[in-house]
Amino acid sequence: VSDLENLISRFRQFSRDRDWEKFHDPRSLILALVGEVGELAELFQWQLTDDPKSSSSAGSRHQRASEEIADVFLYLIRLADVLDIDVLEAASQKLSASEARFPVDQVSGIAPDKVG
Amino acid sequence: VSDLENLISRFRQFSRDRDWEKFHDPRSLILALVGEVGELAELFQWQLTDDPKSSSSAGSRHQRASEEIADVFLYLIRLADVLDIDVLEAASQKLSASEARFPVDQVSGIAPDKVG
Amino acid sequence: VSDLENLISRFRQFSRDRDWEKFHDPRSLILALVGEVGELAELFQWQLTDDPKSSSSAGSRHQRASEEIADVFLYLIRLADVLDIDVLEAASQKLSASEARFPVDQVSGIAPDKVG
Amino acid sequence: VSDLENLISRFRQFSRDRDWEKFHDPRSLILALVGEVGELAELFQWQLTDDPKSSSSAGSRHQRASEEIADVFLYLIRLADVLDIDVLEAASQKLSASEARFPVDQVSGIAPDKVG
Repeated sequence: VSDLENLISRFRQFSRDRDWEKFHDPRSLILALVGEVGELAELFQWQLTDDPKSSSSAGSRHQRASEEIADVFLYLIRLADVLDIDVLEAASQKLSASEARFPVDQVSGIAPDKVG
Repeated sequence: VSDLENLISRFRQFSRDRDWEKFHDPRSLILALVGEVGELAELFQWQLTDDPKSSSSAGSRHQRASEEIADVFLYLIRLADVLDIDVLEAASQKLSASEARFPVDQVSGIAPDKVG
Repeated sequence: VSDLENLISRFRQFSRDRDWEKFHDPRSLILALVGEVGELAELFQWQLTDDPKSSSSAGSRHQRASEEIADVFLYLIRLADVLDIDVLEAASQKLSASEARFPVDQVSGIAPDKVG
Repeated sequence: VSDLENLISRFRQFSRDRDWEKFHDPRSLILALVGEVGELAELFQWQLTDDPKSSSSAGSRHQRASEEIADVFLYLIRLADVLDIDVLEAASQKLSASEARFPVDQVSGIAPDKVG
């Protein structure tokens, strides 16, 4: 099994061992995910692109971003697992659809929402 | 390489081919992710747990949930890639930390936020 | 002036006095708002509708909900102000549109997303 | 009564008339709010601060931003109403707290998250 499948299994077992599966209905998991997305957003909320003052604290923010992304990731794969969705397969298909939808020679350098 | 690494590489190449890397700064990716989380939330917003009327449309909602989860997943791994974060490693460490923080015999059946 | 207009003015002056207007571009305010929405979601994430154990802490959660709703409200009216949008007028028009779109005799008791 | 109180009352009556109060539990309203925040975020996701190409469509985006802000506002005041929270009073207190917490002469021009 891949590392991702292994992580999904571990989280499933983690939930089962603690009798937490009953809390992991889709709505609860989405609200938990929203909470983590909020923490991720906070890290970047006042971050002006070229603010030199932010460099000094860049290291600690990188670490915190890593942790928040991890939290969002965990709730997302748990949600997919609970809904019996193969997230890697679903994401792969979505990316294939985008590759077909946005031909390189027509969209180069144009923001996605400016493309017909 | 694993399937996940392969997907990350494909999205990176997809962005490079279209000269879209310039749009993929952290703040833009987080806003895009928030957009997809919103679409995911919408699917479940009026979903009362035991509403029998919702069964008939359960199939189509499952498909849409699969697509929205895929979209969130894609922006999340893209964000991690742009920030040079190994999302699988970060998530694995976070889960390990939770395993240590919530001992089975102390938290069984108690909602996470009710645990000391 | 109404209390709401007064609050909008106070927040504008608050920002001006601290030279924080430069941080209040739309994207930054939306990210800040997402952060507060995340804190609001966290308060309700594991809240099963009929969980009797949650009653004891209901008082403190009500207070925290009040504060998080206030935070979301403040960033939202600030965003509207920065974009020169009359949020009360816009919301009133939206509600009028919903009143026309969902005739009482056709949608009674049916969840909004199940309607037409 | 103020315009805001009037709007809150109208939304309450709107919900009662359609027998939709049963859908307006806090978790459902938060998920609905997240959906609208997502639509708001989408409008600004690829918006680079100084992109001249975005000027042409600025008018239509302003209109859409107005509508999305209105939607977030409506769900937020409905949530406050359901929880029996005086949102204007709560927001006013929060702003007062911020005024006290961030003295003008100490924080001028410094991003909020950089302040002690």
